[in-house]
Amino acid sequence: MDALKIGLIGSGFMGKAHAIAYHALPVVFPSTTKVVCEIVGDATEELARHAAPNLGFNRWTSEWREVVSDPRVDVVDICTPNYMHKEVALAAIAEGKHVYCEKPLSLSSQDSLEMVDAAEAAGIKTLVGFNYVKNPTTALAKEIIEGGEIGKVVHFRGTHVEDYFADPMAPFTWRLQRGYAGSGALGDLCHIISMALHLVGPITDVCGDVQTVIGDRPVHGAIEEWARVENEDQAHFMARFANGAIGTLEVSRIATGRKMGLTYEITGTRGSLYFDQERMSEIKLYTANEAAGRQGFKTLLLGPQHPDYAAFSHAPGRCLGYIDMKTVEVRDLAEGISGLKPLWPDFRAAWGIDRIIEAVLLSHEQRRWVSLEFPEAAPEG
Amino acid sequence: MDALKIGLIGSGFMGKAHAIAYHALPVVFPSTTKVVCEIVGDATEELARHAAPNLGFNRWTSEWREVVSDPRVDVVDICTPNYMHKEVALAAIAEGKHVYCEKPLSLSSQDSLEMVDAAEAAGIKTLVGFNYVKNPTTALAKEIIEGGEIGKVVHFRGTHVEDYFADPMAPFTWRLQRGYAGSGALGDLCHIISMALHLVGPITDVCGDVQTVIGDRPVHGAIEEWARVENEDQAHFMARFANGAIGTLEVSRIATGRKMGLTYEITGTRGSLYFDQERMSEIKLYTANEAAGRQGFKTLLLGPQHPDYAAFSHAPGRCLGYIDMKTVEVRDLAEGISGLKPLWPDFRAAWGIDRIIEAVLLSHEQRRWVSLEFPEAAPEG
Amino acid sequence: MDALKIGLIGSGFMGKAHAIAYHALPVVFPSTTKVVCEIVGDATEELARHAAPNLGFNRWTSEWREVVSDPRVDVVDICTPNYMHKEVALAAIAEGKHVYCEKPLSLSSQDSLEMVDAAEAAGIKTLVGFNYVKNPTTALAKEIIEGGEIGKVVHFRGTHVEDYFADPMAPFTWRLQRGYAGSGALGDLCHIISMALHLVGPITDVCGDVQTVIGDRPVHGAIEEWARVENEDQAHFMARFANGAIGTLEVSRIATGRKMGLTYEITGTRGSLYFDQERMSEIKLYTANEAAGRQGFKTLLLGPQHPDYAAFSHAPGRCLGYIDMKTVEVRDLAEGISGLKPLWPDFRAAWGIDRIIEAVLLSHEQRRWVSLEFPEAAPEG
Amino acid sequence: MDALKIGLIGSGFMGKAHAIAYHALPVVFPSTTKVVCEIVGDATEELARHAAPNLGFNRWTSEWREVVSDPRVDVVDICTPNYMHKEVALAAIAEGKHVYCEKPLSLSSQDSLEMVDAAEAAGIKTLVGFNYVKNPTTALAKEIIEGGEIGKVVHFRGTHVEDYFADPMAPFTWRLQRGYAGSGALGDLCHIISMALHLVGPITDVCGDVQTVIGDRPVHGAIEEWARVENEDQAHFMARFANGAIGTLEVSRIATGRKMGLTYEITGTRGSLYFDQERMSEIKLYTANEAAGRQGFKTLLLGPQHPDYAAFSHAPGRCLGYIDMKTVEVRDLAEGISGLKPLWPDFRAAWGIDRIIEAVLLSHEQRRWVSLEFPEAAPEG
Repeated sequence: MDALKIGLIGSGFMGKAHAIAYHALPVVFPSTTKVVCEIVGDATEELARHAAPNLGFNRWTSEWREVVSDPRVDVVDICTPNYMHKEVALAAIAEGKHVYCEKPLSLSSQDSLEMVDAAEAAGIKTLVGFNYVKNPTTALAKEIIEGGEIGKVVHFRGTHVEDYFADPMAPFTWRLQRGYAGSGALGDLCHIISMALHLVGPITDVCGDVQTVIGDRPVHGAIEEWARVENEDQAHFMARFANGAIGTLEVSRIATGRKMGLTYEITGTRGSLYFDQERMSEIKLYTANEAAGRQGFKTLLLGPQHPDYAAFSHAPGRCLGYIDMKTVEVRDLAEGISGLKPLWPDFRAAWGIDRIIEAVLLSHEQRRWVSLEFPEAAPEG
Repeated sequence: MDALKIGLIGSGFMGKAHAIAYHALPVVFPSTTKVVCEIVGDATEELARHAAPNLGFNRWTSEWREVVSDPRVDVVDICTPNYMHKEVALAAIAEGKHVYCEKPLSLSSQDSLEMVDAAEAAGIKTLVGFNYVKNPTTALAKEIIEGGEIGKVVHFRGTHVEDYFADPMAPFTWRLQRGYAGSGALGDLCHIISMALHLVGPITDVCGDVQTVIGDRPVHGAIEEWARVENEDQAHFMARFANGAIGTLEVSRIATGRKMGLTYEITGTRGSLYFDQERMSEIKLYTANEAAGRQGFKTLLLGPQHPDYAAFSHAPGRCLGYIDMKTVEVRDLAEGISGLKPLWPDFRAAWGIDRIIEAVLLSHEQRRWVSLEFPEAAPEG
Repeated sequence: MDALKIGLIGSGFMGKAHAIAYHALPVVFPSTTKVVCEIVGDATEELARHAAPNLGFNRWTSEWREVVSDPRVDVVDICTPNYMHKEVALAAIAEGKHVYCEKPLSLSSQDSLEMVDAAEAAGIKTLVGFNYVKNPTTALAKEIIEGGEIGKVVHFRGTHVEDYFADPMAPFTWRLQRGYAGSGALGDLCHIISMALHLVGPITDVCGDVQTVIGDRPVHGAIEEWARVENEDQAHFMARFANGAIGTLEVSRIATGRKMGLTYEITGTRGSLYFDQERMSEIKLYTANEAAGRQGFKTLLLGPQHPDYAAFSHAPGRCLGYIDMKTVEVRDLAEGISGLKPLWPDFRAAWGIDRIIEAVLLSHEQRRWVSLEFPEAAPEG
Repeated sequence: MDALKIGLIGSGFMGKAHAIAYHALPVVFPSTTKVVCEIVGDATEELARHAAPNLGFNRWTSEWREVVSDPRVDVVDICTPNYMHKEVALAAIAEGKHVYCEKPLSLSSQDSLEMVDAAEAAGIKTLVGFNYVKNPTTALAKEIIEGGEIGKVVHFRGTHVEDYFADPMAPFTWRLQRGYAGSGALGDLCHIISMALHLVGPITDVCGDVQTVIGDRPVHGAIEEWARVENEDQAHFMARFANGAIGTLEVSRIATGRKMGLTYEITGTRGSLYFDQERMSEIKLYTANEAAGRQGFKTLLLGPQHPDYAAFSHAPGRCLGYIDMKTVEVRDLAEGISGLKPLWPDFRAAWGIDRIIEAVLLSHEQRRWVSLEFPEAAPEG
């Protein structure tokens, strides 16, 4: 297959992360489908003109519609603010482009469903940037679980807690407005939901509690003007999984001290796994079949025997970083679009996550459990 | 005040832990009220006769009623199986004895309420063995929270997870029968509820999920005969606290790999605390007021500047153990009964914990939130 | 055998630790030899009079010679400042008493040798308070090594680093004077040498470096008067073991931040062990025979399958503390003196440690390796 | 300045790591000097032909001399086996090329000195791949030390221990032959020496111990044929630093269980730092000036306030990986060669490390301390 030509929209920090990954891709994974950084778009001429050389793209535009309609573009990569995802994606789909979109997919499950329907009707391929499931440590966890090494999973405890809004004086931004961001911590930090689905399987019922702790924030950090925060600072919910396991999931943007608190503990009948993204290159494994007095959680450091690691280093313990995880993601993108393997999580999967978020919000409002009528299919891959 | 004469009922592992603590008490805390190990009772003559020399008690009896009616006994210490707590305690109260009882207080909140009423009517003093709140690390956490060092508490995540029933072939015992144990993991591991109440304050609403994962277990480890497990293996619930904080609490007796997984993370608006009982002599503290680039969780090792530690060692980092925690508990018992300070958690507080457990079970059954109509008073001390 | 009657000399923090252990002993280890806290001596009548009730001793005296000559005393327990050890021990030996002495044994190996010779000539039994080798975690490490689980030991890296003199304004004390303390950090923190000998075996050659970093300290914290520090703040040395392993050992009393930094990593041809006394109830074990991709350091928490732990708790992960370690030590004392097992480390073993310290100091002075002409016998037990 | 044209020699795992870094460089650090992957050479046509597309180089050759003489090459990047470094570097220098060479620089300090002299005479610029000093965590440590946050450094304890030769059946390779590798663990794992020099400053005296534990290894893993190992498996040495600090450094290729055990603890009079490369995105900092009872080692996670991190991520705690460290290194290479800042560690610095290794070997042979007559200048940068 020919190289995939990427049209990137949005050259902020996430666009940059994607760009680094595109440039690293052919060297890290030399036998995979090639990509070309064809064109980058951003909101102003100023931003876009700099983006091309800075992100290593061939061309630039300040009109995102030029990206989606560009005949030389195969894949539209959407790194815009959340509220634009839908419009851009639908336009790209209408042009028959494959779409790689950052999470959350849109501002509501209804919007997401429109996007799913459009994509599926057009027969184009999609991938959503739940990059933490691309961490080789996650693949290792999946291998351990699917190999039966911890028995049947009975419990999941997951968190994605950070503290970027812990300071009550942190200024008001679009992330705090429903019309631009949708939900708050739930949408921002729904990575933990993707992890739960990926590792334990579909969620059938949820019951949650949601809270906006800091109700007003200063505009531009000025203390004279305050704006009302419109979405949640923290939330947690109980979940029931299709396979019979139960669990709790927690998100927070005010978890003072936690910088990348994406963690899980998965308990099985014969073992357990513990992971913390702040130490993303290791996982703790307990297996009950060790000799008496020799049982304990074992710290596995990523090494060449583990999925994808050998592409980065020939020796164990060298540590992978955030960018490396994105490189695995764009490898999956390239291989998925070129038909070498299924893409996950695609729009449909992301819509499932939106529906879980909305079910949590509904359960909170009505103070009861909410069933997900069409439980998501187990993720592939 | 004269020395308190202890009558201990039950000489198993918990009776032994109490006995060690009684013997260590006058040397660890020389200026506190003295105790005398007066009489020990156990179920058979064989057990009781050995208990006296082994636990260092002056006399013994195989009739527990002789302990509660013994005129030389000031305090009845109840270390029997759960189902006997009520009968023994009521008998002791009827004799005007102070009562020190292991948790859970009884098999139901109704039974516990009877015990509370009897104790309060008789004007005797009570203490229930929620020993983990006696860990000096807990006192340090309380000091940090009450001093405002982490700001206002907004979230609590607590677990008490162990794996003593993780093996599906672990034999059937009285702990798995409602008539002898009451609830399962919730009752056994309700220490985490005492921690939440002690550190964050009263809980006003709960909503939980409860599960018996392994429905049948072999009797005496024989595989021909199986018995039905009558109470829960694992449970978790969401809580709302009177002070506005929200949280999750989780208990499990099948948490493969966790031996003493009593942990909490308490998030405040200006800092956070993390604790794990498996490393009971340390606590992790984050405070947001550190210089930029110099923020992080700090591991505080217990030392002489912290509550009660200096009684055990003159130098920091020497580690306290489980028995030391029990020694602090019997110090509190001795000082409480001699009127030097209030006793907490007393029968009333333990009844509050029972009511929370029952509210969790009810919320699970009815799949909804349950309010605790008379929220517990904040713990003293 | 009848109960051993203890005469304790020195009622400071170490005397207190011994006293707690004596009182806990019969309950923790009910089937072991009994001890009686017969008489306690301290330097003044004031101190000694309070010591008896506070430490739970029957009688007291302000004349230590009365302790050693007391016909009702079987064992003299020496918790005085270092410089008195020799005189007291020789007097006790002359009276035919068994001796339990804190470390370091004396101010020089020559003094220690006199003590060894006297004790051996008199046929009395001795034990020196290298309590960290009594930690059940150490016994577990020894069991692992001797069972061949980590193969042949090839390297030892040990530290005992603390920071009690890290503050340059910490006042001058007897510990800084050769005439009262002997060596500095080497003598104070020679626990790591006892660990190396216990776990790896005799040391045959050493080469070290020694440094007094803070040369003068204020007297009584007053800044007008300064006194010269006479012994070392920090030292490290290379060692060669009789079994062919090599290693490094490090001590420091100015290791800012380390409170109980007694650590070791023992590397074998098929596995490794790592231990840190600040987390004294756990040890990390790596064994090379795990499956590919499933290798890693495993955290073993002490539990009932491990040496001595079951005497303290019936369930794993409950944590032992410093006092518990001393209780194991006095159990060994009681059993050793009553002839149930050999005592280690005795005076001879402690003398061996003194000789290692002096060899390190000599190697530093002469900037060369020093051989220990009569390598110590491997420790028993 | 125009883009630097790179000629890479050696397309194995290290050449690949360099290549990934070159490709990531312009996006990670968009404002830095550009590089062009001009030509790659490897030993056979087969290897070289694949290397060009796989590593993203424009051209290829199976004659390394063609790389060094290529007029379109500005910088020769040497990723060959150690024994070729000297010949290739001298040829490149003769052609007036700048040289970027992997460590160790050569097989002996004499060879390295020839290379230093040639480079300095030719006025070309050099950089040696001691990449761990390029970790932003190292830069943070340096900032902390130089800012006086831990006071005056008094002790350094460093290790670089791995286990790639721990298995006695690991087959014989060129790394075990003096003629191809020079020294063994000392040369391979001398990263810890570069860390010590970078963070604490020049070393003036060393005294070490060196050991080949596994004397013979099977050739090609066949057990019929064995070859003699010619260099050391493990070594440790004591060091004295020009600034008065003392320390120990340890290297091992048979440290069972350690995969990337590059660690250091740096003790200062007012604080301490601890680092472990297996968790390369964090560092532990203790500062003595915290409030009483609130002192402890603090885990700093890398974030945007720290050196270079913001180029990789806008948010803290995202983790950097091995490749990111190499990207910082090639950024330094590009900026150094284009004259924006000094290059360190250059050939002269690497020669200094060779001399330390040889001094350690000499000290081992002669069982005495060895002084480094011309102590290395403190590193820049």
